[in-house]
Order: sequence, then structure tokens, then C-alpha cells
Amino acid sequence: MNLKTVALAGGVGGAKLAHGLAQILPPENLTIIVNTGDDFEHLGLYISPDLDTVCYTLAGLANPVTGWGRIDESWNAAENIAKLGGQTWFRLGDRDLGTHLERSRRLQKGDSLSSITRDFCKVWGVEHRIIPMTDDPMPTIVNTVEMGELPFQEYFVHQRCEPTVKGFRFEGAESARPAMGVEAAINDADAVVICPSNPWVSIDPILAVTKLKSTCGIESTSKKKPIIALSPIIDGEAVKGPAAKMYKELGIQPSALAVAKHYKGLLDGFIFDQIDAEFETEIQNLGIKTMLIDSLMKDIKGRERVAKDVLKLLNTLL
Amino acid sequence: MNLKTVALAGGVGGAKLAHGLAQILPPENLTIIVNTGDDFEHLGLYISPDLDTVCYTLAGLANPVTGWGRIDESWNAAENIAKLGGQTWFRLGDRDLGTHLERSRRLQKGDSLSSITRDFCKVWGVEHRIIPMTDDPMPTIVNTVEMGELPFQEYFVHQRCEPTVKGFRFEGAESARPAMGVEAAINDADAVVICPSNPWVSIDPILAVTKLKSTCGIESTSKKKPIIALSPIIDGEAVKGPAAKMYKELGIQPSALAVAKHYKGLLDGFIFDQIDAEFETEIQNLGIKTMLIDSLMKDIKGRERVAKDVLKLLNTLL
Repeated sequence: MNLKTVALAGGVGGAKLAHGLAQILPPENLTIIVNTGDDFEHLGLYISPDLDTVCYTLAGLANPVTGWGRIDESWNAAENIAKLGGQTWFRLGDRDLGTHLERSRRLQKGDSLSSITRDFCKVWGVEHRIIPMTDDPMPTIVNTVEMGELPFQEYFVHQRCEPTVKGFRFEGAESARPAMGVEAAINDADAVVICPSNPWVSIDPILAVTKLKSTCGIESTSKKKPIIALSPIIDGEAVKGPAAKMYKELGIQPSALAVAKHYKGLLDGFIFDQIDAEFETEIQNLGIKTMLIDSLMKDIKGRERVAKDVLKLLNTLL
Repeated sequence: MNLKTVALAGGVGGAKLAHGLAQILPPENLTIIVNTGDDFEHLGLYISPDLDTVCYTLAGLANPVTGWGRIDESWNAAENIAKLGGQTWFRLGDRDLGTHLERSRRLQKGDSLSSITRDFCKVWGVEHRIIPMTDDPMPTIVNTVEMGELPFQEYFVHQRCEPTVKGFRFEGAESARPAMGVEAAINDADAVVICPSNPWVSIDPILAVTKLKSTCGIESTSKKKPIIALSPIIDGEAVKGPAAKMYKELGIQPSALAVAKHYKGLLDGFIFDQIDAEFETEIQNLGIKTMLIDSLMKDIKGRERVAKDVLKLLNTLL
């Protein structure tokens, strides 16, 4: 495929589509830009959950059951920490700990997250380019009814997404710069794919730091390159994670339509599940080209199948 | 046994005798004060090698083969770090990592090394009191011919004790205070046992920070309590570690006699191996009571046997 593509991805859903695209597109034609708004410090280590999920998935090292962490993992460090009375709400596997320890050491000595990611991917045999959206701190803060503002992992893992969401804030978004290679990848790309990740907390941070609307020339009509998205909401539910719950708590009925509206003004095409056919006309009325598919990526073959649909839709928009 | 004893210990040899003493003495009658001059930061974690060796040994968690780290250990974090191009000269096992992560977290939030050690020992079922010599930083610096001054672990692990030793310096010894409980344990004790650890880098730091000579009333002849030592040198060689090499490089023939002389002015009794009987008279001429035994502690029974000899000699000195 000669289509130069940039994929924007959060965690599990994003990683699956990115993996599918990587099966089809050669390394020089796919760059994956990953959300780092979930990044946080735990046990003195720098943890980048979405970045690790995407890297581990493309490397074939991801744990297919949990959706996070590594396959063939052992839990001896975490078990000892638990015995010693330490924190257990965010469990780190032993192999995964190696990643965090080495990344933290390199960050400490001044290397950038993006350069470390490039080096790690090389070791893991990942040939497609994976870039964190920014090397600057830009933590996602979740504003909740019950507990006020919470750092993302505090909300997501520690509080199990239970507090009611009022809104989100991307701390430092004004001053954070896209990581080296992000702007060039978008400028070079023929098209941008927004993966089926959480619009509020996985994709919105990437849109904010990349200033995607102006980067893609949406505001200057002449230079426009197609942008398409996949709905992470199927039949009113998120495949994984709190996206549907967030929509509800923000007073919006969660649906493929709600996702399309979320990205309004940005999208040229939208792919969603055939089970949500009822929304097709309304989405088309937003000026967005639609494609209905079986959008659930149950296995590696499913990822490749959906990725092929993505490229099919993109080709009609070029 | 009603004898209140304080044992001063470094790593493996010290841990063995401390373990032997713990088989015989009830918890209220044995306090083990451990060298922290080897402590260092690695991968952002606070590592306390001698303290861990003593705690793990008394807990039955020590690796009997390596002399450091834990039994039933896995190495998945270290293996990943090595793959990622990280530092491999100081390998940390997965279970062991749990200890360092949780200890580092607690130090970070302001808990003292001694209080953390107390809590960890409780979890590990260690009833005898183990106290780090100080909660203050007091790193041992090794002065070498080839490389100048090296932090201890850099000399010991990274450089494999290869550089030629010129001398030692205990940084911060003037201002470091003994950890809570150290002075009280020495004051309450009927006797002090210097374990068969490296005199230069395991015991000397403890002597420096506890100011043992004045604490034990050696300088005021009235309050004197017996102090005995075991030779870590047998037949001119250290059972483990670089003690003999250090003696040679400092121009001293390594022997039980050299060890006795090292502690001159401090010792009332000295236990050394029967293979070194030739030195008996000369050691006695230093005003030190001698006991010749089979001093090698090959197994747990050997530890208990040597500990019994220690108490026998102490009883003749009270």
C-alpha cells in the first residue's frame, strides 16, 4: 500500500487497529501517535500505559487477557510488595517492571520519551514508527462529582472509573509541544486515522497537542487531507473502558452518532458497526462519509479485516 | 540464654553467624547491627545489600548459592532490562525488586531505613531485632591505585574488586548518627560480637558510627563489657569477598593475626580457625583471650555450632 497513514491511538482498542494497519502497511507508510495523557509516576517509576500497550501489541508481547501488561508475565515483585504492605492498586508484572525501570533511568539521565520509545521498539522488533504525542508532561485530569479533580490513573485504576465525570482537563496542553516526528508524520501523511479509542481521554489529548485541525489544513480548505475515525462505541457500549459511562455522565446518549458528533468538523469518513445502522443517515447529514462493518476486533484476523476496511474508505476519500 | 548480645554484621559471613546466634538466643537477647556503608542507589532504587542479606538470611529467604538476593527468584525484569540495553552489572531479581521498590517508596515519603527494616522483618517473621547502623547516608568510598576513589558497589560489583586498594573513607561518618535503638542496644548488652565480616568495609563503618570504643566504656576502664570477634580470614584467605586481597594491597599479610591486630584495643576475645593455630601465642600476647575452632559455617548446623562457641567464650569473659 502506498498510502502514507498516521494513526492516533490510545490503549487497547487503538492498539488493535494500529496492529491491523501494521499487518497491511509497510513501516514507512504508517506512523502511530500515542496518547501520553495517562502517563504517571508510580513507585518512583515513569509509567506510560497507552504507549506500552501499543508497543507491546505491535511487538506481539501484549497480554491478550488483561489488555495491559505483558504475555508470559510473572508477578513476584508485586507479590512481595503486597506482603510488605505496599500499594497494590496498580500491579506491575516483573517483565513490565524492566521496561519501566530502564525507561525511568533513561528519562532521569535526560533522554526523551520519544527517543527511548524508538530504541525500545527496535529491540522489540517493531518496525512501524510509534511516537508518544509529546515528550512534555501533559497529564489528563478527570473532574468528578464525588472527588473533585483526579489524575487519570487515580480515576481509572484506583477508583475503577466509579466517580461521576463532570469534565476533563489536559494540564500543560498550552505549552506542550508535539514530540519530534509527530508534526512531520502528519504533514507527510496522505490520511489520518483516529483509532477506536476513548474520544475524551485518549484521542482529545492527541488532538489538543498536535493541533490537528490546523496541522491538517482543515482551516485552510485547500490543503485538506482525509481524516476518518472508527467508533469505539458499539450498540451503545464501549468495547472496553469507560467511554460510554463518560458520555452518559456528561449528559450524552453514548452511540456511534455521539462519537461522530464528538469529532464534528474534523471527520471526512466514519466507520461504525452495522448493528448501529440506525445512525447512518444522521451521521451522513453531518457531511461525513459512512461505512458500516463488523467492527469488533476479536482476534488478529479481525484487526487486519477492520484495517482493510479503513484503507478502503480512505481510498474513496483521496 | 540470658546473655544480652549485640552482633555487628556485614553481608554473608556476618549473616551466617547472626543466624546461628538467632537459633540460640531469644529475640530479646540479640540485636544485630548491620553495615549500611555499601548502600547505594541503582535504577533509582535504594539498595542496602548487607541489610538485605542479614534480613533474608534470618527470614530463611536468602539465596544459599549466590550469597545475595533471594531463594526461588525469577529474573524477568533484569532480563528485559538487559534486552533494552540497560545496566546489567548489578542484577536484581524480581522478588528482591519488590523489596527495593517498596523500601524506596517509603524512604521517599520520609520513613527511616530502621523503621522500614523493622516493618519488613515483622512481615518476614524475623523476631530478632535487625537495625541498620545509621539512618543517615554514610557511603564507603574505596580509594584505588588505578581508578582513584570509587563508591563501594562500583568497586565491589562493577569492577569486581579488581582495582588495587589504597585506603577507605566513610563519607559523612562525622555527622552520621547511629539509628534509633543502636546505642540503647549496645548500652543494654552484656557483650558485643563482631561477626566474621570484612574488617575494612563491613565492620569499620559500624565501629565508626557507633563510636564503639567510647560506647562500650573501653576508654573508662570501669564499665567495660566484653567484645569478641571472629576471624573472616581462614588460612590466609577470606571465606568470601575481598578482605584478604585488601590486606595484601595495604601491605599486610592476611591472617587471623592481622584481623586480631586490626581490632587491637577493642577485643577481649578472638575466635579463629584451628588451621591458624600458629598465630595463637602472638594473639594472646596482644592481651586477647583466644579460642580455636572449626570456624567454617558450611550449613545451618555449622552456624549454630559456631554461635555456641561464641557464647562459650563470652561466658568466660563476663
